[in-house]
Amino acid sequence: MPDFEILDKIGSPRDLKDLNYNQLDVLCSEIRTKLIDTVSKNGGHLSSNLGAVELTVALHKVFNTPDDQIVWDVSHQCYAHKMLTGRFDSFDTIRQEGGISGFTKISESEYDSFGAGHASTSISAALGLAKAKTIQGKKDFTIAVIGDGSLTGGLAYEALNNAGRGRDRLIIVLNDNKMSISRNVGAVARHLAITRSKPLYFRIKNGIERFIMKIPKIGKGATRRIIKLKALIKSVLYNNTLFENMGFAYLGPIDGHDMKTLCQLLESSKTMSRPVVLHVCTVKGKGYSFAEENPDKYHGISGFNKETGEVSGSCSRYAKAFGETLCDIAESNDKICAITAAMKPGTGLTEFAEKYRGRFFDVGIAESHAATFAAGLARNGMIPVFAVYSTFAQRSYDQILHDCAIQNLHVIFCIDHAGIVGSDGETHQGIFDAAFLNSIPNITIYTPATVSDLRMSIYKAVDDTEGVAVVRYPCGNYNSDARTSYEYCDCEISGKAAPTAIVSYGRVSINAVNAASSLKRDNIPCFAIKLNRIKPVPEEAVQAAIGCKDVFFFEEGIKAGGIGEHFLALLTERGFEGKYHLTGVGDEFVQHSTIESAIKKYNLDERSMTAIVKTGMNDRNKQG
Amino acid sequence: MPDFEILDKIGSPRDLKDLNYNQLDVLCSEIRTKLIDTVSKNGGHLSSNLGAVELTVALHKVFNTPDDQIVWDVSHQCYAHKMLTGRFDSFDTIRQEGGISGFTKISESEYDSFGAGHASTSISAALGLAKAKTIQGKKDFTIAVIGDGSLTGGLAYEALNNAGRGRDRLIIVLNDNKMSISRNVGAVARHLAITRSKPLYFRIKNGIERFIMKIPKIGKGATRRIIKLKALIKSVLYNNTLFENMGFAYLGPIDGHDMKTLCQLLESSKTMSRPVVLHVCTVKGKGYSFAEENPDKYHGISGFNKETGEVSGSCSRYAKAFGETLCDIAESNDKICAITAAMKPGTGLTEFAEKYRGRFFDVGIAESHAATFAAGLARNGMIPVFAVYSTFAQRSYDQILHDCAIQNLHVIFCIDHAGIVGSDGETHQGIFDAAFLNSIPNITIYTPATVSDLRMSIYKAVDDTEGVAVVRYPCGNYNSDARTSYEYCDCEISGKAAPTAIVSYGRVSINAVNAASSLKRDNIPCFAIKLNRIKPVPEEAVQAAIGCKDVFFFEEGIKAGGIGEHFLALLTERGFEGKYHLTGVGDEFVQHSTIESAIKKYNLDERSMTAIVKTGMNDRNKQG
Repeated sequence: MPDFEILDKIGSPRDLKDLNYNQLDVLCSEIRTKLIDTVSKNGGHLSSNLGAVELTVALHKVFNTPDDQIVWDVSHQCYAHKMLTGRFDSFDTIRQEGGISGFTKISESEYDSFGAGHASTSISAALGLAKAKTIQGKKDFTIAVIGDGSLTGGLAYEALNNAGRGRDRLIIVLNDNKMSISRNVGAVARHLAITRSKPLYFRIKNGIERFIMKIPKIGKGATRRIIKLKALIKSVLYNNTLFENMGFAYLGPIDGHDMKTLCQLLESSKTMSRPVVLHVCTVKGKGYSFAEENPDKYHGISGFNKETGEVSGSCSRYAKAFGETLCDIAESNDKICAITAAMKPGTGLTEFAEKYRGRFFDVGIAESHAATFAAGLARNGMIPVFAVYSTFAQRSYDQILHDCAIQNLHVIFCIDHAGIVGSDGETHQGIFDAAFLNSIPNITIYTPATVSDLRMSIYKAVDDTEGVAVVRYPCGNYNSDARTSYEYCDCEISGKAAPTAIVSYGRVSINAVNAASSLKRDNIPCFAIKLNRIKPVPEEAVQAAIGCKDVFFFEEGIKAGGIGEHFLALLTERGFEGKYHLTGVGDEFVQHSTIESAIKKYNLDERSMTAIVKTGMNDRNKQG
Repeated sequence: MPDFEILDKIGSPRDLKDLNYNQLDVLCSEIRTKLIDTVSKNGGHLSSNLGAVELTVALHKVFNTPDDQIVWDVSHQCYAHKMLTGRFDSFDTIRQEGGISGFTKISESEYDSFGAGHASTSISAALGLAKAKTIQGKKDFTIAVIGDGSLTGGLAYEALNNAGRGRDRLIIVLNDNKMSISRNVGAVARHLAITRSKPLYFRIKNGIERFIMKIPKIGKGATRRIIKLKALIKSVLYNNTLFENMGFAYLGPIDGHDMKTLCQLLESSKTMSRPVVLHVCTVKGKGYSFAEENPDKYHGISGFNKETGEVSGSCSRYAKAFGETLCDIAESNDKICAITAAMKPGTGLTEFAEKYRGRFFDVGIAESHAATFAAGLARNGMIPVFAVYSTFAQRSYDQILHDCAIQNLHVIFCIDHAGIVGSDGETHQGIFDAAFLNSIPNITIYTPATVSDLRMSIYKAVDDTEGVAVVRYPCGNYNSDARTSYEYCDCEISGKAAPTAIVSYGRVSINAVNAASSLKRDNIPCFAIKLNRIKPVPEEAVQAAIGCKDVFFFEEGIKAGGIGEHFLALLTERGFEGKYHLTGVGDEFVQHSTIESAIKKYNLDERSMTAIVKTGMNDRNKQG
């Protein structure tokens, strides 16, 4: 472990104030060393953090945090911020159970002015923070730091549309690393490309204006027309970035790794009398050659070898199986289209994108659009498959309901990262989709437990389901290889009818099956019901459980409004008279830890299931 | 009932093809007469429909529907479209139970290429439709008709950002009536204001370009600089509307009530080799003087007097009470802020907006932004109250969860139009919010039944609730004046403990209380539990029901994942051994009708409740 000459001495941002530019550069280099070292062990986000080092240092140098507030969009780039704000000593615990979070979190530090995990929220949040200060007569600044990728989300546009109007002390730092935009995403990308050139954009503009004013009036008749034209040209020039059109002052673009320029422009942005957009160009992965060359590879990782750059762990078997299966289906079915919201590799669609280019759509970080766009495709006879993480599908709620389900269109949602996600923590948990999708009519939900289940479910969803079909599957590889039925069935009942049923779905249903076997070996008569479809709940499953004395339902998801409660309602409707025991996530958000650890914590592993059933049995025997 | 010379003979859009411009103008006038006549009786949307008459006729004249497909944004402006597409004879039934819908609906007509009710979906949907045709090698056009108001929604931006890239036969008609934007909403409004001037924008542009090319090169040293400047000016001129920046061809703006120009420009838009934006200026309420002068008043109405313009019915007592109460609270509490997403009058905030201008925010049709913005305000000590219809709160799902609830911020959601909404129909029903909010931790949900309940709930939410507080209340006046408790309590238990409990919440809980009284008069021993808070469910309510032989739960909302299922789970957890009977909305969308009729249909009126309890009792007696 190296000692850091400067970083070791930074207890709070106040300690930056007296450092000169040379010292700040040394600090940045030390931060990079620490970043690479820690992320190589703990996993996390590397490229975005390396790119934002100078920007982070400059912000804390120039502004008076925490009174001036920084809102980090997505906040996966907050690592240097954490090191500078009293969390250097605990930095080794990042993303570990009980350790600090990989994202900003208001409960963790007064310097974390707003928490995030999803993209495009920073301008809305910062506007709220700034507006509160305006109302309260406070003069402190609010700074949103947002990447160009996050600008593809409609939420950012809604916020820009509102923020430019005011006189709030709001500064939007556009952290433009180009890399998160894989191709032209319209207005923003085009604007950035035009304005990215040096010398400073606003100087060019002044030059043009002076030049235009010198154009001589030609003849008499033309005069009026020329005046009009000049006025139009001027108006265009004065308002020719998207941001200026929206009422912001615009500064930049500047080199986001040049500390002096950064500090100077941040100081300038304080002097404007209206909201400012400061355009900063950075290099993703800056300072670590492997990451600079291949920033995507080091975006979110589980660990790597510092010397060789070799990334440990591979992509989720579920995502891989999804991508392969969809390619197989698409080969003989030319109606299949695949959609991703800026998550092509993460969702396993890289191969599909190459093979079926005309039927592959990366819409940017725009989950709402993705769902309605899919509805349009389906309405005209295509079979769109939108692959999206559970936590981001939350952003399509209304579009799933209003555009897909009401019209009963055959749109397929392949919901990855369903259930517990591990070290990304509370903002990324996939514990809500089963509940919120279950409430929406015209939806069928498949819940494969294993990779082979997943393949079958996708075929079932594509070929043999009407209306909206959802296939939800977890991340990682927990239970992915367990052996289950080789033909699709709505539910699998393991063992003979017995007084005790253990019911579950998804990957933890493998644990339920194993728990039932183990209990039988202990002479507790029971059987397992593995639901491969949770909406509608298979009638066969209800009938299998209806006569039981005890039904234990285990759910890797929120209990309130979830499938466990719904299964109870179905049993009750049919006259169930036994006892019902529901285990799942209570009224709380799930913190970061390993997946295994969280599954244990919520009593969804085999051993906990066995214990819960035994306790339930004992209670019953005591009573009677 | 007047006879219509031309309109009577239009069986399908084909019948428009041979009409000349004069005849088309007569047709427009007849459509207006029919519109005013029908909406005055049935209620519905008037101003937007009057403004879109010429545009609708021109679209069906120029395009070959239904092969060419029109997607109406929100689709409240689709009345003339319905008249021209085989639904003139049933037009009198619009918005009536069993009659045609007030919105487009794919199950109603092949000419309704996509259904809607919520704003800003049309471009995403049209892009999906168009892309499907491109893949299939079809040459038909897809036309999205979208108002300037709908462009404030982030979804429209996400779609524009994707649509401009392609070579699809996609035409976006921007129906710019200025009226839906109450003030500058940033880029879009500003662009429209600039480009709204005549002569045609694209002609001006050509003129400027020629002019610039004629500027002589001045001297030697300046040459290179001038060439650069010219290039920049040209690039700016070629790309100086938001839409051109996004890759669209741009035509307009044109007078949207001039049939000949409309038809000509629509024809021109067919000839472009890339997606087109056609900017059409219309007057909301056109042709009915009362509506032209006061288009807001006639936006969505329940009926009016044709001669005097007097609008029948008044705004919901609930919305009125909400607005008054919030003003009362804000008088002594300067932290209170109110937020609306373009629904100031509809949500009852007109008075607040006048009295507390600095603390009132109309964010445009941007529900996602509203919630995150509110979270920012709350984080800095303000108390934001976002008043939003239940159906539109669906668009804030992720922001409620990710930005408000995870951070446990004190944001208040006043959810109007909760439950059944009546004649707006399936796209507007407020039957999902109780279910989806119940699943999210750190939320408290109040469910006032009456206007006096509502006042108390708002005080409770503001002054005495931690974290996210939701107050949900219905539209209309059904049960609004019933007398209930004069002090806030989490639940009201009417009558002594008895073997049968009737549990409900919201306005139909009044019916439950009345049903219990009526049953007692018939010597059926029972009591009612009226839940004024559904999350967390008051323990008192669970304890009151736990010993019952029969518990009947009535829910004005979706059953799957709803409060009724959750109440059963709570009872079961505590050892309930009685029978549980849940009544609510099954796995279906609720069609348009009156509120009263739908409440009866779903067995939530007093008489149905009484009958259900009696049937339940009989079944038990037979069994026992």
